[in-house]
Amino acid sequence: MSTAESRLAFEDFQVGRVFEFGGRQVDRDEVLAFAAAYDPQPFHLDEEAANASVLGGLSASGWHTCAMTMRMMCDGYLLNSTSQGSPGLDNIRWLKPVRPGDTLNVRMSILEARPSKNRPQIGLVRSQWEVRNQHGDTVLTMEGWGMFGRREAAAGAEVPPAAG
Amino acid sequence: MSTAESRLAFEDFQVGRVFEFGGRQVDRDEVLAFAAAYDPQPFHLDEEAANASVLGGLSASGWHTCAMTMRMMCDGYLLNSTSQGSPGLDNIRWLKPVRPGDTLNVRMSILEARPSKNRPQIGLVRSQWEVRNQHGDTVLTMEGWGMFGRREAAAGAEVPPAAG
Repeated sequence: MSTAESRLAFEDFQVGRVFEFGGRQVDRDEVLAFAAAYDPQPFHLDEEAANASVLGGLSASGWHTCAMTMRMMCDGYLLNSTSQGSPGLDNIRWLKPVRPGDTLNVRMSILEARPSKNRPQIGLVRSQWEVRNQHGDTVLTMEGWGMFGRREAAAGAEVPPAAG
Repeated sequence: MSTAESRLAFEDFQVGRVFEFGGRQVDRDEVLAFAAAYDPQPFHLDEEAANASVLGGLSASGWHTCAMTMRMMCDGYLLNSTSQGSPGLDNIRWLKPVRPGDTLNVRMSILEARPSKNRPQIGLVRSQWEVRNQHGDTVLTMEGWGMFGRREAAAGAEVPPAAG
């Protein structure tokens, strides 16, 4: 168990800070299972159809790539943070096919950070994520806001609130 | 097998047209399995942690909701279309928790449609998707471009190209 003090809090996500994590290998059986469950388009399910498609071979569903990225984010920082979830994401771009056997890594850059006006105990952090394969090709980019508990607000809870 | 003529092509996605489909029930075991694989934050995995969180109870990972929506899109129109994939999505907003036992439906509205300049055999379609639960609450919205084969371009393939 990480203590409250050791977990990443709002204050740790300074604008310009970069986090790198990942190393997930893309498993062929998992690519096929995810596609069968959630995205059964022929080019994600069938080698021949995939070879004939614009993707030029079997590739993971874009949603599977997002899900694998989420898992890398969880293991890379979220599970050791004061995260309280995300209201949404923007600018998801699937730039290159993700192939079975690829190894994916994530580079996260902090774009904006500000305390919440309505909920002083949390802060809002806008990040950009770039997912790259073992060749250095960027396969996915996305941006989004996350909500994180504030270390300073927790400490400040014992201070009487200012008038007004 | 659907014939080329019966499949939805670029020309069928007229601006303003609305498609409704779905009816997917959210399965509790699947919610837990998806979270364990891709989004193991305590509030997606554990009833007590979920009750104590801002989500107020166990809910599907936002990525799981997207994946279930993708499956409804596949069954609702994509698998019976000339779809050639999507370059990306924008404005994903997870507006309300999705609970085990919920039934989800999708309303898709066509926002823009134009032939590709570089690839005359395809057209680009921008859509908005709204996902609602059985209470009529909107739980997810997103927008994005899709690429679809053009029926007219296929027919026009036998006509000599215009000079210039």
